[in-house]
Amino acid sequence: MTISIICTNKNPEPWYLALKEIDPSLDIQIWPDENNKSVIEFALCWKQPEGILQDYPNLKCICSMGAGIDHLLSDSFFPKNLPVIRLIDPSLAQSMFEYIYTAAMYYLREFDLYQRQKNQIIWEQHQPKAISQTTIGIMGLGKLGEYCARKLSQAGFNIVGWARTKKQIEDVKTYTSEQLEIFVSQTDILICLLPLTPQTVGILNSELFNITPKNSYLINVARGEHLVESDLITALNTGQLKGACLDVFTTEPLPQDHPFWTNDKIVITPHCSSITDPVSVAPQIVQNYRLMQSCKPLMNEVDLQRGY
Amino acid sequence: MTISIICTNKNPEPWYLALKEIDPSLDIQIWPDENNKSVIEFALCWKQPEGILQDYPNLKCICSMGAGIDHLLSDSFFPKNLPVIRLIDPSLAQSMFEYIYTAAMYYLREFDLYQRQKNQIIWEQHQPKAISQTTIGIMGLGKLGEYCARKLSQAGFNIVGWARTKKQIEDVKTYTSEQLEIFVSQTDILICLLPLTPQTVGILNSELFNITPKNSYLINVARGEHLVESDLITALNTGQLKGACLDVFTTEPLPQDHPFWTNDKIVITPHCSSITDPVSVAPQIVQNYRLMQSCKPLMNEVDLQRGY
Repeated sequence: MTISIICTNKNPEPWYLALKEIDPSLDIQIWPDENNKSVIEFALCWKQPEGILQDYPNLKCICSMGAGIDHLLSDSFFPKNLPVIRLIDPSLAQSMFEYIYTAAMYYLREFDLYQRQKNQIIWEQHQPKAISQTTIGIMGLGKLGEYCARKLSQAGFNIVGWARTKKQIEDVKTYTSEQLEIFVSQTDILICLLPLTPQTVGILNSELFNITPKNSYLINVARGEHLVESDLITALNTGQLKGACLDVFTTEPLPQDHPFWTNDKIVITPHCSSITDPVSVAPQIVQNYRLMQSCKPLMNEVDLQRGY
Repeated sequence: MTISIICTNKNPEPWYLALKEIDPSLDIQIWPDENNKSVIEFALCWKQPEGILQDYPNLKCICSMGAGIDHLLSDSFFPKNLPVIRLIDPSLAQSMFEYIYTAAMYYLREFDLYQRQKNQIIWEQHQPKAISQTTIGIMGLGKLGEYCARKLSQAGFNIVGWARTKKQIEDVKTYTSEQLEIFVSQTDILICLLPLTPQTVGILNSELFNITPKNSYLINVARGEHLVESDLITALNTGQLKGACLDVFTTEPLPQDHPFWTNDKIVITPHCSSITDPVSVAPQIVQNYRLMQSCKPLMNEVDLQRGY
């Protein structure tokens, strides 16, 4: 029984070390250098090359190296008959919350505007908007979304949330699919934390931006494909949106000639809102590996139909 | 009995309206257009011109239009025999906390570095430092300092505090005057909230910066004179400090040719960390005016010897 780490765009070394630290007896290989692919039963995957999983005849389980699994399913040869699990990292939710808080405060206290004033040597005060006077809308109330909603509410923001199904979260007014308009019409700051599914691709578009209050702010920490990029540029140009903080993009790294780089109303961060820490998640990977070996139900298994 | 609003660098109009809103019968005049200076007993002051208070023969009380009073005392003709009161604005403390939180998160999540990377079209991730792994040191534990210490501690930061006298604040380790070194040696983020007194002028200097952990961050929201400006430039150049967020300056507005404007490790904001809201503080001004009229003890009276 062997684990293989099959990833691109990520360094497998810290993952190897974190797993070995928990159990030095584990047999762990790293793609593409495995001795014998037929002994591999458990694959730890991130953006595997198209079709590569067909090389493993005895695979029993695929574990994403992050919270999302869309990067696995975009492979058209992905083996849909196998159980897929994802990582639930408590420190990741906190890290995501801290990123969102940073972006929200950056907007509220006009640090972007003061930066532009600094560039032009302008000294001009602007009355800040208080946390207590600000409504944040969270799209997606899964584990990450619910965690962030609770923490932002505790910090004093007024929070509304939107999800496919009805959710109950203390001090958060929640809406379901068909209530998107009433939800969005309240949000000074709109945060996308949705899973990427056929229903959510391109959901951040002109139609949506035109319902937000004028001068609102967009934070996308989910997937680049949620956003219609040209619609964002339009909304910023018309002033419908005051600015945006983007951590994810349709193509990553963001191409050198992309217009976002030179748009001074957009903050760009390189997909760092929540970087999974291998040391923090290694225990649950090993635990799931043991559960698989003893044919017991796995933790955090994904519903492939729903996509999360 | 009359109130006069005597200010420069501030618009007296919103203050006049806020006081009249509470009691339309109040007789309020605005410098320099008073009919008769001899009827003025209560002066609401901000950066009054040197010597001007000598023109009011029957002044009984001077009220600062902010939390600090150094802008009053810098007038060498200031009448030191009169009671001086200052404003304690609860919304001001919250606004100050929100500013400090913004600046601290801006540093923790490397938004300054990502901004510089964006300018150069560079996509490069940096592992963020977590709130729980960060120690903030607060210099000055008066009303504002204590409020910020409590709120930042609740937000999950490790907080240490330093003040002239020993203070007791839950979950905050506090130090007194002679323990400055041991206090500063722990601070990833150093925040100055001190009153400006002869003892605190120039306290943010090379000697202090050299004790902080390497790559720490400075936030000054007190007074420009606390900082030896050339020492900050040196500490940023040597990398002893990673950056600074400054809201106050020795000369305000910051002169056009000041080297801070072009230093990309310094965030400059135009003294906006806590803008006193006249509507929020008008009730306490009127209450103190009534107390003065009935010869009762005043609220928030300043000890002129101490300077706060």
